[in-house]
Amino acid sequence: MPSPVRPDRATAPETSHLAERFAAVRDLTLALAAPLSDADATVQSMADASPTKWHMAHTTWFFETFVLRDHVAGYALHDERFPFLFNSYYEAEGRRHARDRRGMVTRPSLDEVRAYRAHVDAALLDALPTLSEDAQALVALGCHHEEQHQELLVTDILHMFSENPLEPAMWPAARKIPVAMPGPIGWIERGSEIVEIGHDGEGFSFDCEGPRHAALLSPHAIADRTVTNGEWAVFIADGGYRDARHWLADGWAWVKAEGIVAPLYWEERDGESGSGWTRFGLDGRRAIDPAAPVTHVSFFEADAYASWAGARLPTEFEWEAAAASHDASGGNQMDVAGPVEPRPSPGGPAFFGDVWEWTGSAYRPYPKFAKVDGAVGEYNGKFMSSQFILRGGSCATPRGHVRASYRNFFYPHQRWQFTGVRLAKDI
Amino acid sequence: MPSPVRPDRATAPETSHLAERFAAVRDLTLALAAPLSDADATVQSMADASPTKWHMAHTTWFFETFVLRDHVAGYALHDERFPFLFNSYYEAEGRRHARDRRGMVTRPSLDEVRAYRAHVDAALLDALPTLSEDAQALVALGCHHEEQHQELLVTDILHMFSENPLEPAMWPAARKIPVAMPGPIGWIERGSEIVEIGHDGEGFSFDCEGPRHAALLSPHAIADRTVTNGEWAVFIADGGYRDARHWLADGWAWVKAEGIVAPLYWEERDGESGSGWTRFGLDGRRAIDPAAPVTHVSFFEADAYASWAGARLPTEFEWEAAAASHDASGGNQMDVAGPVEPRPSPGGPAFFGDVWEWTGSAYRPYPKFAKVDGAVGEYNGKFMSSQFILRGGSCATPRGHVRASYRNFFYPHQRWQFTGVRLAKDI
Amino acid sequence: MPSPVRPDRATAPETSHLAERFAAVRDLTLALAAPLSDADATVQSMADASPTKWHMAHTTWFFETFVLRDHVAGYALHDERFPFLFNSYYEAEGRRHARDRRGMVTRPSLDEVRAYRAHVDAALLDALPTLSEDAQALVALGCHHEEQHQELLVTDILHMFSENPLEPAMWPAARKIPVAMPGPIGWIERGSEIVEIGHDGEGFSFDCEGPRHAALLSPHAIADRTVTNGEWAVFIADGGYRDARHWLADGWAWVKAEGIVAPLYWEERDGESGSGWTRFGLDGRRAIDPAAPVTHVSFFEADAYASWAGARLPTEFEWEAAAASHDASGGNQMDVAGPVEPRPSPGGPAFFGDVWEWTGSAYRPYPKFAKVDGAVGEYNGKFMSSQFILRGGSCATPRGHVRASYRNFFYPHQRWQFTGVRLAKDI
Amino acid sequence: MPSPVRPDRATAPETSHLAERFAAVRDLTLALAAPLSDADATVQSMADASPTKWHMAHTTWFFETFVLRDHVAGYALHDERFPFLFNSYYEAEGRRHARDRRGMVTRPSLDEVRAYRAHVDAALLDALPTLSEDAQALVALGCHHEEQHQELLVTDILHMFSENPLEPAMWPAARKIPVAMPGPIGWIERGSEIVEIGHDGEGFSFDCEGPRHAALLSPHAIADRTVTNGEWAVFIADGGYRDARHWLADGWAWVKAEGIVAPLYWEERDGESGSGWTRFGLDGRRAIDPAAPVTHVSFFEADAYASWAGARLPTEFEWEAAAASHDASGGNQMDVAGPVEPRPSPGGPAFFGDVWEWTGSAYRPYPKFAKVDGAVGEYNGKFMSSQFILRGGSCATPRGHVRASYRNFFYPHQRWQFTGVRLAKDI
Repeated sequence: MPSPVRPDRATAPETSHLAERFAAVRDLTLALAAPLSDADATVQSMADASPTKWHMAHTTWFFETFVLRDHVAGYALHDERFPFLFNSYYEAEGRRHARDRRGMVTRPSLDEVRAYRAHVDAALLDALPTLSEDAQALVALGCHHEEQHQELLVTDILHMFSENPLEPAMWPAARKIPVAMPGPIGWIERGSEIVEIGHDGEGFSFDCEGPRHAALLSPHAIADRTVTNGEWAVFIADGGYRDARHWLADGWAWVKAEGIVAPLYWEERDGESGSGWTRFGLDGRRAIDPAAPVTHVSFFEADAYASWAGARLPTEFEWEAAAASHDASGGNQMDVAGPVEPRPSPGGPAFFGDVWEWTGSAYRPYPKFAKVDGAVGEYNGKFMSSQFILRGGSCATPRGHVRASYRNFFYPHQRWQFTGVRLAKDI
Repeated sequence: MPSPVRPDRATAPETSHLAERFAAVRDLTLALAAPLSDADATVQSMADASPTKWHMAHTTWFFETFVLRDHVAGYALHDERFPFLFNSYYEAEGRRHARDRRGMVTRPSLDEVRAYRAHVDAALLDALPTLSEDAQALVALGCHHEEQHQELLVTDILHMFSENPLEPAMWPAARKIPVAMPGPIGWIERGSEIVEIGHDGEGFSFDCEGPRHAALLSPHAIADRTVTNGEWAVFIADGGYRDARHWLADGWAWVKAEGIVAPLYWEERDGESGSGWTRFGLDGRRAIDPAAPVTHVSFFEADAYASWAGARLPTEFEWEAAAASHDASGGNQMDVAGPVEPRPSPGGPAFFGDVWEWTGSAYRPYPKFAKVDGAVGEYNGKFMSSQFILRGGSCATPRGHVRASYRNFFYPHQRWQFTGVRLAKDI
Repeated sequence: MPSPVRPDRATAPETSHLAERFAAVRDLTLALAAPLSDADATVQSMADASPTKWHMAHTTWFFETFVLRDHVAGYALHDERFPFLFNSYYEAEGRRHARDRRGMVTRPSLDEVRAYRAHVDAALLDALPTLSEDAQALVALGCHHEEQHQELLVTDILHMFSENPLEPAMWPAARKIPVAMPGPIGWIERGSEIVEIGHDGEGFSFDCEGPRHAALLSPHAIADRTVTNGEWAVFIADGGYRDARHWLADGWAWVKAEGIVAPLYWEERDGESGSGWTRFGLDGRRAIDPAAPVTHVSFFEADAYASWAGARLPTEFEWEAAAASHDASGGNQMDVAGPVEPRPSPGGPAFFGDVWEWTGSAYRPYPKFAKVDGAVGEYNGKFMSSQFILRGGSCATPRGHVRASYRNFFYPHQRWQFTGVRLAKDI
Repeated sequence: MPSPVRPDRATAPETSHLAERFAAVRDLTLALAAPLSDADATVQSMADASPTKWHMAHTTWFFETFVLRDHVAGYALHDERFPFLFNSYYEAEGRRHARDRRGMVTRPSLDEVRAYRAHVDAALLDALPTLSEDAQALVALGCHHEEQHQELLVTDILHMFSENPLEPAMWPAARKIPVAMPGPIGWIERGSEIVEIGHDGEGFSFDCEGPRHAALLSPHAIADRTVTNGEWAVFIADGGYRDARHWLADGWAWVKAEGIVAPLYWEERDGESGSGWTRFGLDGRRAIDPAAPVTHVSFFEADAYASWAGARLPTEFEWEAAAASHDASGGNQMDVAGPVEPRPSPGGPAFFGDVWEWTGSAYRPYPKFAKVDGAVGEYNGKFMSSQFILRGGSCATPRGHVRASYRNFFYPHQRWQFTGVRLAKDI
């Protein structure tokens, strides 16, 4: 999700309840940041991640710039210096603007950023009734944009806490409801078929989800659930990370260079029951749950696991065809601020929530995809090289955000998002 | 072409003239190396390239190992130490084996490598009549393998000479036959259609070319020729390398980090007629020919050019569908050792030779692709991440080597091969 | 000053007023940190620098470990997890402990670190009257140790603020008292002479300041003041940073690789009076004062300036011989928390305060120097390669900390301390 | 020895036998290169090393430029393109000139470089009788300069062969004459004393050897021989490379980052008699000789060994004072081309030959040292930072080249020269 701003192709704004939606989205961001100190919200733990404060301010800058500045006469910027700090859009113009120095901005403080949010929220809610349809569409876009940053905020802060030797918990652990171990994977078969892929234009979507177009599927089977932590521990115990035969060449080079032996945040601890593997999460370090979907694995790991298991990853079209009939708002997605994590599934095919599922499809444009002109659309297609598609949303995706046509994408070595694995097979 | 050995799926050996074919392939390699000194053949100019001597010995090791050692009773290795030096197959087991240290092997000398070749050639031709069908198939595979290395040998030595301030010419220039500037690009249109893609199993192919399968094309137009040097000079003059809007994000980062301003080997020289641009080639440094296809451009450059031109790159399926009816052995391909380079086309659609054409398709497996077991097939699919497909062969491809289904692949920043651009458009 | 802990050679503790001294030192650290937010005190801007919070906790850990834990029966650690976080002593035992990840420790918070300080202060003041002479000597050592960290705290926080595009001022600017431009440099001459160098054993010193020993001076002249900002601007205007002849080879490589054109924190701003040069300081960005000593220059720059000026840097022995008769507690040193910076000198030879002065002497041991055994002395000589000696203290050195024999040291490219230049000549 | 050209301070040329000396020096270079193929002489194995061909051509360029071009009317350059290739003097003007790309110059060939040498030799010998005294001094300087490159040639080619998995021997092994193990180190004591240090101006010297000046020694003892391979094996067996206490901080970081466990070229081989340690040398890989001086150790290793042994390295003044009364032309130095290596000493104090001895002195200028003006002297002092002094010459130093005042220098991590260790102690 390196390009957080991918504008709405649809021109129909969600006008009826736009104010309520705006308020709810803005409130969730505040709730997510509520447990954080000023310092927590300021530090940047790696170049791929941004500080919480930056997410909070950047999403605000989006509304301030594209709605208030451009569509509300007489609006004065809250602070003339903020666009320079919180604009991620245009080509960097110097070292201060560099993405990897966002953690140097101790000032403005977290409280000042909250004040910036409050100022923009009030101005926007005040202006909303009189906004043009175009401007209202931009408000709707800004809400989707902020939802993307909510997921990044959660995964970025998790990474930051993982770098603290004290391994602080962001929230207390949720109560665990015992769930039986999932049974063997069931396979959903499908023959050769032409299917319609991509967003159909009803409601909001990002531009890379379309145009909707026909695609030809080959006969295949797709798993009815994702791979679990328990299954992954078997892969590790079987030497999966030490056997080059399972790995793509680039993946094997990554494993050796980085000393990878397990998913991100896993550590083996003596005295743990079961496999001895623990994971770090938003509720601190705990034993892995063997019944829950494995997460924080890279594409390289996902592909190697599939190879070891005698399977492969699904294509994004196979995934979308299988998921299209399922409820995209179901499953384990984020409803409120709290210690989200993948959970054992109650059973039955599920395609949404828990973990983003790596597909075997490279992120490339659909037929007739075209870049949108202007600032909002400046960068829509620019990330379409060397990344792979993920589908289905995760436990950190705000419920309602994801669709069957939704295309997320990351580089094959990245794994700090809630990323997991669903298998597929040729038949 | 990072994986030079991709085994034959077909089991039917080309037995009738195998000895002649073997001799011809082996002779061409010697002819390509003929102008080189021992030092020329030893030096490695970058990690992506290998020394000529290494290519000569590695292709020989292939025949020695998989044919003579495995199928000829009583064969004794020419030198027990050579497998360690000239085996590219297995995971590196220490620093000496490292790909980027191949240029340290001043000994054995070029003459000793020639003697190694002669020894293996004699043994193989001696054994050929009595070889099993399987072993004969391996000989045929070895010939295709060596042809791949012939192209690498030419492009690697060109790169090596380009690093010498004296810019030595490998061969004298060929006589230039004046050719008129090509007219405007013509567009070959095609509607929505299901086509068969991949090798049909007649004759030799590499495993990644299959299985043959149906693919659905979208309505599109594909150019009837590749982009020329003259057109590229306009792109440069129009600021193409300085305008981030044309570039993929990874490509723009590459342009800035490496200071890219023109195709590889281009330099601006005062006093040159025309644009002032020169290129370095196997015949030394000369003015660019505006009518000839541009070459030594990366995928990033190809994609940026297409964006600037209001077009896009073809998919590999669009390319294959358009090329399938053309003669794969036609056009400007390599017949003999000499100063190969892309040449102005005599006119009419041409899909083979001159330059490998970047497609917009990532290198991924076809439906039902499966790795071959064992050493020869160990690594066939392992390069299927982060690389893009090129099609059509080049001026340095031995004539007869390439097919409509042939899939070459390189990383998007690589450009020391003879790589060029064909445009396409959605219609 | 990479090794902040260099233990007391002297065994005589400063017992009479130890409690007062301890309280004063501890209070100054709190006063220095007073303007900082939790976030300000947490962020680490480069590997060479540490967060304020780390300085505050590490100096506290020193007293807790070597005095309370080792010498006070029944003392319980304030927090069992803190030694792992705040011990800089022993060889790193894993990635979490890495010096360059100190900025990840958002928790404990600044208030929790203040509470840690209060706990240890109370325990130590309580135990002080009954401590053995050895333990009291460790308290005195801890005070000197903390003074070293006070200077690092100030220079590290200045660097951190310099990385924020908003360039926050730590304190309001002090009132500027107009001072006349200094006159030409006066030269203090000295013939061939044997002098006594090193600490004489009266009062506290660090081990590398001794043993006191004879040294032979050559005839030379040493400047009676340091080089000013105004003089440095002339060096820049004369092309000093663009002429390789003035520079050591390593320095020239550094200038080119880093794009160095002026002292650290200098930027040219249109509309500035005078030269147009500004500098960033603890009171924000302001025009340089041409009469004040230049600071934030590396050894490489100091050496190049001296070469350009037809002079050289003094040896550390020449400097110490010249400075020995001056009052080490005089000049512009740090008395209270505030916007310290080098100031124009009122005239007359001055050797202490304002800027640490680069000498031409490599940091190497004196004759008969021996490492101290045990934890406190573990690392005393380990930094004696590739660093250069600086003498005289700076505006950020707590008054009373420095001596004529005091040896500070940094790598030749480092310049985030208040470092400046005094010239010398052979005669 | 990074700056191979350090001009003659003395103006008195060695005129009487200059032609003979010139011829002898030039012949030794040819003899050293005689066993090499064109490829051997072309490859560059690391940025610190240069190809043999480059050494042969650069030393020739020196005579051609500073004697023939500047002092012989009508002399025409042998090849106008060679100064660009073989001039090491002036600041690099582009990537082609880069020191680390010297290995790309496969052409001119070794034979062409020999022809270049022959051309210049003939022209110079022809001109010699009529040359001015200044020009003759430059010829003498060129001979000293070439001797420096002879030692570099030998050590650089040894490094290049060490990178070939076949580990070729440059020459057959010399006959080994059994020598008894050396007895315990004897200590040469000396009290506090003023001594004269530096070259006295009689005969040739490089500028950094002077001016001669008084220096004050402290009471000390210096070993009467260097450390042996056998003693070094004990250091290894005692865990010397695994115990941070022995090491300078920079050295310990180097040991860990590079995985250093033994001197360069040492490898442990099963089945070897004695310690199992072998070394690679000009005669290939062989068991270490426990009685011979250890070599190919860095300053960091030398300092760690001394620390482990309860001693220290001598200062360069202590070394020079002890060596001044010994014959600088004695010991194991290079007389003819062949497999030089350190050899067991016949007994009695020896200060010259076998191995360059690391001192504890940083490379800094002597009092009143001044750079020489002009091209020949352009760079004399520019290497005087971060390097350490070595004294005494080695088995690869042409006999007659070294003096008691001779100052060699390398960075503390470098060890591909024949570098070893002599201990000293305070008394």
